[in-house]
Amino acid sequence: MSPVALETTTAVVLRAPKDLVLEDRVLYRPPAGSCQLRVVTTGLCGSDLHYYKHGRNGDFAVRAPLVLGHEAAGVITHVGPEVTNFRSGQRVAIECGIMCRKCDFCLKGRYNLCRNMRFCSSASVYPHQDGTLQTIMNHPAHVLHPIPDNVSFELAALAEPLSVLIHASRRAQIAPGQSVLVFGVGAIGLLACAIAKASRASRVVVIDINQTRLNFAVSNGFATQTFCPTRADPAKTLEDQLRQAKELAQQALSHFGAPQGFDVVFECTGSETAIQMSIYAAIAGGKVMLVGMGARNVMLPLSTAALREVDIHGSFRYCNTYPEALQLLSSGKLHNVEKLVTHRFELEDAAHAFDLLARGQDDRGNVVLKVMIGS
Amino acid sequence: MSPVALETTTAVVLRAPKDLVLEDRVLYRPPAGSCQLRVVTTGLCGSDLHYYKHGRNGDFAVRAPLVLGHEAAGVITHVGPEVTNFRSGQRVAIECGIMCRKCDFCLKGRYNLCRNMRFCSSASVYPHQDGTLQTIMNHPAHVLHPIPDNVSFELAALAEPLSVLIHASRRAQIAPGQSVLVFGVGAIGLLACAIAKASRASRVVVIDINQTRLNFAVSNGFATQTFCPTRADPAKTLEDQLRQAKELAQQALSHFGAPQGFDVVFECTGSETAIQMSIYAAIAGGKVMLVGMGARNVMLPLSTAALREVDIHGSFRYCNTYPEALQLLSSGKLHNVEKLVTHRFELEDAAHAFDLLARGQDDRGNVVLKVMIGS
Amino acid sequence: MSPVALETTTAVVLRAPKDLVLEDRVLYRPPAGSCQLRVVTTGLCGSDLHYYKHGRNGDFAVRAPLVLGHEAAGVITHVGPEVTNFRSGQRVAIECGIMCRKCDFCLKGRYNLCRNMRFCSSASVYPHQDGTLQTIMNHPAHVLHPIPDNVSFELAALAEPLSVLIHASRRAQIAPGQSVLVFGVGAIGLLACAIAKASRASRVVVIDINQTRLNFAVSNGFATQTFCPTRADPAKTLEDQLRQAKELAQQALSHFGAPQGFDVVFECTGSETAIQMSIYAAIAGGKVMLVGMGARNVMLPLSTAALREVDIHGSFRYCNTYPEALQLLSSGKLHNVEKLVTHRFELEDAAHAFDLLARGQDDRGNVVLKVMIGS
Amino acid sequence: MSPVALETTTAVVLRAPKDLVLEDRVLYRPPAGSCQLRVVTTGLCGSDLHYYKHGRNGDFAVRAPLVLGHEAAGVITHVGPEVTNFRSGQRVAIECGIMCRKCDFCLKGRYNLCRNMRFCSSASVYPHQDGTLQTIMNHPAHVLHPIPDNVSFELAALAEPLSVLIHASRRAQIAPGQSVLVFGVGAIGLLACAIAKASRASRVVVIDINQTRLNFAVSNGFATQTFCPTRADPAKTLEDQLRQAKELAQQALSHFGAPQGFDVVFECTGSETAIQMSIYAAIAGGKVMLVGMGARNVMLPLSTAALREVDIHGSFRYCNTYPEALQLLSSGKLHNVEKLVTHRFELEDAAHAFDLLARGQDDRGNVVLKVMIGS
Repeated sequence: MSPVALETTTAVVLRAPKDLVLEDRVLYRPPAGSCQLRVVTTGLCGSDLHYYKHGRNGDFAVRAPLVLGHEAAGVITHVGPEVTNFRSGQRVAIECGIMCRKCDFCLKGRYNLCRNMRFCSSASVYPHQDGTLQTIMNHPAHVLHPIPDNVSFELAALAEPLSVLIHASRRAQIAPGQSVLVFGVGAIGLLACAIAKASRASRVVVIDINQTRLNFAVSNGFATQTFCPTRADPAKTLEDQLRQAKELAQQALSHFGAPQGFDVVFECTGSETAIQMSIYAAIAGGKVMLVGMGARNVMLPLSTAALREVDIHGSFRYCNTYPEALQLLSSGKLHNVEKLVTHRFELEDAAHAFDLLARGQDDRGNVVLKVMIGS
Repeated sequence: MSPVALETTTAVVLRAPKDLVLEDRVLYRPPAGSCQLRVVTTGLCGSDLHYYKHGRNGDFAVRAPLVLGHEAAGVITHVGPEVTNFRSGQRVAIECGIMCRKCDFCLKGRYNLCRNMRFCSSASVYPHQDGTLQTIMNHPAHVLHPIPDNVSFELAALAEPLSVLIHASRRAQIAPGQSVLVFGVGAIGLLACAIAKASRASRVVVIDINQTRLNFAVSNGFATQTFCPTRADPAKTLEDQLRQAKELAQQALSHFGAPQGFDVVFECTGSETAIQMSIYAAIAGGKVMLVGMGARNVMLPLSTAALREVDIHGSFRYCNTYPEALQLLSSGKLHNVEKLVTHRFELEDAAHAFDLLARGQDDRGNVVLKVMIGS
Repeated sequence: MSPVALETTTAVVLRAPKDLVLEDRVLYRPPAGSCQLRVVTTGLCGSDLHYYKHGRNGDFAVRAPLVLGHEAAGVITHVGPEVTNFRSGQRVAIECGIMCRKCDFCLKGRYNLCRNMRFCSSASVYPHQDGTLQTIMNHPAHVLHPIPDNVSFELAALAEPLSVLIHASRRAQIAPGQSVLVFGVGAIGLLACAIAKASRASRVVVIDINQTRLNFAVSNGFATQTFCPTRADPAKTLEDQLRQAKELAQQALSHFGAPQGFDVVFECTGSETAIQMSIYAAIAGGKVMLVGMGARNVMLPLSTAALREVDIHGSFRYCNTYPEALQLLSSGKLHNVEKLVTHRFELEDAAHAFDLLARGQDDRGNVVLKVMIGS
Repeated sequence: MSPVALETTTAVVLRAPKDLVLEDRVLYRPPAGSCQLRVVTTGLCGSDLHYYKHGRNGDFAVRAPLVLGHEAAGVITHVGPEVTNFRSGQRVAIECGIMCRKCDFCLKGRYNLCRNMRFCSSASVYPHQDGTLQTIMNHPAHVLHPIPDNVSFELAALAEPLSVLIHASRRAQIAPGQSVLVFGVGAIGLLACAIAKASRASRVVVIDINQTRLNFAVSNGFATQTFCPTRADPAKTLEDQLRQAKELAQQALSHFGAPQGFDVVFECTGSETAIQMSIYAAIAGGKVMLVGMGARNVMLPLSTAALREVDIHGSFRYCNTYPEALQLLSSGKLHNVEKLVTHRFELEDAAHAFDLLARGQDDRGNVVLKVMIGS
């Protein structure tokens, strides 16, 4: 076949908020260092949902038609020039951040902070880099990862959100024997529980305002104890809000029988109150790891953190995590992780999938965690 | 001399805000493991000033007459039973935090977080532990440190605030070649500059709203560049305040020619705006180290920190720092550190010393940094 | 009861190599800060065996009658003055190293290197500190640890050798996803496997010259693959010996399908050949952790280590490990760990216990791992 | 100029041991991502000398004519396609290791262990990658580093050996206040002293068997104390050799007044005895950093290291060090570092330069440290 031979990919394109269309697009053969692959499955992420609903995610607004999706796995169909470590037919997880490999962050192994990152499905650079909600795509070989035989495409797609938590747990330097509290038990929070448990946390407990989710977490072994805070009256002042957060945190600690607090707190909701509670709920010398994104500016009880040496860390995407994520998924150590995939759709039904994800609960009252799109 | 022999110490006792009296008190011989010492000099600290002015420091209110002072050096006069590594006449720096050596924090070498800490001159425990503004005192030998011959009593007293910065720089893992920005150039901020410089920072720059202090910092070689932010109009909303802080930070970075920000930011003012600016002024992957205490609750641009993996650390007192502090003072590597001692008083003039420290500038217009009390 | 009231303890005393006698000794009430306890069980360690057989262990020779045993658990019978966190009747694991809590190593949380360590059953200090092979003893409360309800006395005694491996794995900074190779699968090597597995090692494989032990390791789930090196001809020169070690290591790596080597190698035999193989079997950038003691001076292929940045670490006893060890034993995450206890004896049969341990195999051909002495 | 335009470089080519010839070679325009540069100066390294004298360095034998030299600085003459951050005329230090940026070591920021490293002037890969002893060469832009204005070409060439020590000191985690002992004060050992001093080591002392070098070290401020061990009688056995090494180490520690040993020992000689002494001379919990290469297999007092938790690290080349090295050279903090350049030659006299380096002392009795070749 000639190097300029063309293929056609069918892509789900976001043209405006809530405006998705299926488009056929021409695809050239993979350039040097890249592979062409058939995308088999893509999981939907909260950031995809933000783009779908609002046409933006935080600071990044969609400026041109964009293909969403970045939690994906597929099969290699063509191997481009200079690629020696892959062959056609190989099953691969697709790491969607394409780092420049030249900037100082890349050279130091911290490529999630790459100055020239092109991340598929994100509007953070322009022209945008399209995502995986399409049938065929080209992708650089150095961000493709072989899938172990006993790992399904769907589990391999979970390597992406799992990578977020592996990265966060590395940054939190979570150590065996530590106690862990997780705020928010959506897909990300449940993966935080799974990683904590697999890291020999002495205990893993969870807080959420959704009792159905809490039940899911406990009945599937992700956590041993739960706390569902009463919804507070609307706070009149920020000081009020902090006082309420402190009281709720103390109630939770008392409920958990851990009055001194937890060694590591994973905040996976992005809610202002949860972030505030995180600080009150960490032990002296402990760590708060902010995984959830949401409130941009938050009133923090900063002296409560500083005087007790509670470190406040954020965590942005991931680096060097895919091999560990896939190995972990293969090992069987993440008990019940496959139950995170609660719903499945075809590519042409992507809009319904987003709508369901937005509702958070299906018609039968089941919780919606990870929605997969087959392509 | 009999083991019950008594001495008399003359102490400066705080009975109520701004109410200091000289008192003669009986002192027993040092118990097992302790030494008796003549205090030679004590530096005044911002926390002493808070107690003096308000009868409280943050959450800790004075509940009984309290002797202030915890930056001190002296001479051993009697060696108690079971003390084998000191002799009478020896010059020592007095580490004022008496840790329990039994709790988990102590066993792990993080004794600044000791659950049973008794800190001289602090109202954090009751009964309070008296401080060093007196002529004679007993003190456990394991928190006494021999003073190198070429280090004066005054410099040895500086080992305490210097310890605060050594601890903070350890927690910030400040590494050679990093760029450092310091907010606030009082005694603590200047010591932050000195530590950063001695840690092979590639550059050290400072921000303060007091031009006299900035001039002092540069003319004495503590920093190479300064920025004096214009006082902002009173912000109408918290969002306004953050926008102003962001603009000020960007002006500062532009002025310093460091548009990407600094690797490590030492915040030594405790002011809300400075804390907010710190986050905007740190580079992606950098660190904000909160050294100053002040505002308890602060509105933070948290997504700006989290998405760029800017870590927010507090730093509380110090542990295992005195030997390094004294060695560093002896080495001559802290150029001009002796200039931090700007004023000196006798024990009976302690009230005047506090009043001068509160004013921040003496009658001749000279900046007041560290005030020493000879006893 | 009066503070001078006496109890009688019955102790197994080593008077000379292979000369053990039962002795009744008077015991005073526990001094301030200590508890008196009834020892329930003690596991025998290789170092006990060295003292028993040779009257010495490495550099330390027994200079006076010595009570052996330091892997022990018991019940508190009297609580001494100033002890507030224990009560009579409480079940405790006995941490046998009594650190000074004053030296620089203690203050920094690295108390296993304490300059004044008194370690029960060791001849490293004189007068020696007696061990736990007795019925009653006094012991400082700060080195006693409550046993979780679901942990037996025997398992609690295992907290000691488990601590050795927790400490070693901390020093090796063993991280999730790493591959681990263990040399020697006696009790210590099996615990290394258990810790590696519990630390999410991607794989754990073992090498031993004893096929029965290898079978035990695999059939009980401690490792997934084994290699039993052929015994080499006696090497004529040290260069020969190294060449043989390199060949054996390469055979092992080829057998394991890991030609690049393992991320972390735990050397638990102390044999010269195994130590040499360890270096050849570690991956570039990997770590060799020396846990076994034996050969004092070893010819090492040092450029093979240095040019590939393979770090060589030793590990001496442990610090701050008991809480994690007991929590881990309670958690059930150390699958089959109770099978390490293969034989049990009464206090008066201690000599038979040592003889069996020395043989390594019982009359029925079963492997001897951990021998427990009830008292 | 056309993209295929040719230049001519004049190179010093090693054809066989001690057989250097000047050759004119054709040079194409720089490919995408590379620059063409005029080499201004190259420092000679011990590994260059090994190749020159023996046609090999350790395991690596020269298999084809090879251009030596890898400590170099020059001026950019042509900027290749896709290079945006350099311009013609710019002064640059040349980092000679060209890493693949694709393997796991590269992605993790540990590119000195890159599986596909092409290092200029080294025979470690075939075809060999030529070095810098030539007038013009092409080199990838991502391993070129701008030279600060106040740093000369010669100092910029020193950024290479300085990088070796920066990397070693990072791996040794040398911390402020630590005591440092350096074995061997050739160019590498003196740079070890300089880095230790700049890292706030509490003291830096040196051992060498060459009194002239020791004098140089002290009189130029690199170290404060020296020890020149008496040459031992030839050891009859390896045990004898170790006993002698132990005695020499104890004499040295006694001479330095540091009976407990040093926190960090940099071994820069590669000699067997010095490596053995290093272990005896490190404090409990300390580190031995092997920088020198030499003896491949060494008899080590391994239990002396392991039981005292003295870590043994090797250090291989460097990664992410050039910016810090150049900044440090610019800062003036490496007092007298320019004195390391003791001799200079023209390109056509390279053979004489190597011969002088081999002798170690010039005709006037001056020590030979770094020899520079202008091109």
